Amino acid sequence: MPASPIRKLVPYAEAAKKKGIKVYHLNIGQPDIETPPAILDAVKHTDIRVLEYSHSAGNESYRRKLVKYYKRVGIDVTPEEIIITTGGSEAILFGFFSCLNPGDEVIIPEPFYANYNGFAVAAGVKVVPITAHIENGFALPPIADFEKVITEKTGAIVICSPNNPTGYLYSREEMEALKKICLQHELYLFSDEAYREFCYDGEYISAMHLKGLEQHVVLMDTISKRYSACGARLGALVTKNKAVYDTAMKFAQARLSPPGLAQIMGEAAVDLPEAYFDAPKAEYMARRDLLVKRLNAMPGVFCPNPGGAFYAIAKLPIDDSDRFCQWLLESFSYKEQTVMLAPASGFYGTPGLGKHEVRLAYVLNLTALDAAMDCLEKALEMYPGRITIDKKKSEMSV
Amino acid sequence: MPASPIRKLVPYAEAAKKKGIKVYHLNIGQPDIETPPAILDAVKHTDIRVLEYSHSAGNESYRRKLVKYYKRVGIDVTPEEIIITTGGSEAILFGFFSCLNPGDEVIIPEPFYANYNGFAVAAGVKVVPITAHIENGFALPPIADFEKVITEKTGAIVICSPNNPTGYLYSREEMEALKKICLQHELYLFSDEAYREFCYDGEYISAMHLKGLEQHVVLMDTISKRYSACGARLGALVTKNKAVYDTAMKFAQARLSPPGLAQIMGEAAVDLPEAYFDAPKAEYMARRDLLVKRLNAMPGVFCPNPGGAFYAIAKLPIDDSDRFCQWLLESFSYKEQTVMLAPASGFYGTPGLGKHEVRLAYVLNLTALDAAMDCLEKALEMYPGRITIDKKKSEMSV
Repeated sequence: MPASPIRKLVPYAEAAKKKGIKVYHLNIGQPDIETPPAILDAVKHTDIRVLEYSHSAGNESYRRKLVKYYKRVGIDVTPEEIIITTGGSEAILFGFFSCLNPGDEVIIPEPFYANYNGFAVAAGVKVVPITAHIENGFALPPIADFEKVITEKTGAIVICSPNNPTGYLYSREEMEALKKICLQHELYLFSDEAYREFCYDGEYISAMHLKGLEQHVVLMDTISKRYSACGARLGALVTKNKAVYDTAMKFAQARLSPPGLAQIMGEAAVDLPEAYFDAPKAEYMARRDLLVKRLNAMPGVFCPNPGGAFYAIAKLPIDDSDRFCQWLLESFSYKEQTVMLAPASGFYGTPGLGKHEVRLAYVLNLTALDAAMDCLEKALEMYPGRITIDKKKSEMSV
Repeated sequence: MPASPIRKLVPYAEAAKKKGIKVYHLNIGQPDIETPPAILDAVKHTDIRVLEYSHSAGNESYRRKLVKYYKRVGIDVTPEEIIITTGGSEAILFGFFSCLNPGDEVIIPEPFYANYNGFAVAAGVKVVPITAHIENGFALPPIADFEKVITEKTGAIVICSPNNPTGYLYSREEMEALKKICLQHELYLFSDEAYREFCYDGEYISAMHLKGLEQHVVLMDTISKRYSACGARLGALVTKNKAVYDTAMKFAQARLSPPGLAQIMGEAAVDLPEAYFDAPKAEYMARRDLLVKRLNAMPGVFCPNPGGAFYAIAKLPIDDSDRFCQWLLESFSYKEQTVMLAPASGFYGTPGLGKHEVRLAYVLNLTALDAAMDCLEKALEMYPGRITIDKKKSEMSV
């Protein structure tokens, strides 16, 4: 079982803080956006005598509400096609356990959300990465790359759009290409759509919009980012495949029920006005614009413009991103401040990749983000492991 | 993955209710005891701006509180030996995944909590049951029975005291015997202590009270029953074994954090006056006394007196408990009422056992419980599959 690459730098950050250094956290997808007070109020005004187990699939009232929510984003489902889970994490876990056998393989475009590794290890499943490249903004790798690694053991393709960690938003053409390959090779398509609401350029396409693929799609969802409610731990597994649903329900029954108070929040969230998303979306977009502009203005730095979510991956003129991110916390400060980033190496399955890349989560307000960029700019000037990049070739040489 | 034996009768109960029949639910461990208003108020009065991920091990403030709680029950631990989990369920899951490899075996005295099967399947672990018997109230089977089934692959013994589903409370001698065998064969002792607060006869002994066994014990805990807060989904894995803790933390990090609002409840719960447990405990004891008395007064029925928890297993003069429990819902009513029980067969690992036994959860008030017993008494008179028991031999003959 691998340690979380995002969390392993935590002790260094704690040590920096003890020395009085302010740490800008761009390392983790914990938004600073306010959780809508209305959904917290729903919990505060609830009248519970006994906080009972809910249905293992989640309260029916909440599943009915979610049907309405999904209709708004063009997804037609029934309450009987939804299992409420403990965060998106449990939806991913149930998907792996329900659709795959130990020894099976899943194909995931890399870089990818590192915790997929943990769930794969738990399910005894092998992750087969195919590489997306920073040069074209981490677009879907060519279908030929998928074909090359598909074997008898391949059970599913895992995608996340808009993507964590790259921010890339798959186009309709890319989604259609995925549909074709899943139908042709009888693969499940696990679709992690945690960042659905945050698409800035281009159109949001859900795996559930793909006609004819209904029996192959397992949607993994969460309210964590949608309503800035990560701590609630509330997600959903959605599928029209009855056999997958029934198997996932057995795992759901073994853990009895999803969190009760969070379900009250989730239910209230569906009643928020549709305009609710306008403000956080505009805020994230402004942050993205600032971040990408600042990064690309730094000598030797390249950051493609992400189409969604609140992450970007940047290529830095550094020898090793793990070393650099640790150095930022351990040996660097600028005006008593530093910045915490996630080394991109942890998001690649292929050893050696991501060595010159970092992931930045733009989860701080514009002022803080600007100050964090000041830190990064200074740090890159001072870092002893700085190297030069041949921008054209996008290759590194010391 | 097996379906939950407790939940598979649910459609029959729903059908009965649609016909206008009142169903007394003695089938599931969902207490009717009020959740302490003070711990729900703690959530209502909280001032959260952003409901963030907590630490993967749970909020430090809550772990500190739990240290105090454990001290009161004679368990000395530090916050760094506690991982807050999503219900006791996740603590069990983490224990299986952290201590065992696929192909390993765990020994569990049967009848046992049926969901252990689900977690074992998920971890690729084989459950090896050894049989406890109703005749001596489901006391720990002789150590010789353990010795017989211990192999190279045995990784752990799983116990639950006070026990679900039998209500049996292990004595100090039994706990010491378990310690001896775990030390001798280098086995983990997984100790599910969900019902710690509800011991009626005899002394509560935690696995963590066993001197010299510290490195072997993994405590699986929950607030579900302690504070009648099953829906909160809040538990804990506690261990002094650093390697087990570190491995469990990797699984904890993969799922990010335990539920946030529930942790606020858990923290407030530690501040409840110690006398809080007096009332629910007295209530459960009165119910147990009524239940056991009523059951043993029915011809052909035998129910040992459980020392703790809120369950009892009774032997009934019936051909098949699955068939009987379904018949109760489908074909029987008395004064427009019936009772829902859990067939004991689902709690045994050995096929064929528990055929004449049911589990009763005394989670209803005395009036309801008495009415439920009226139903059961009538049902046993009318049930077409009634058989006679030779009480002395405790054997069945049609």
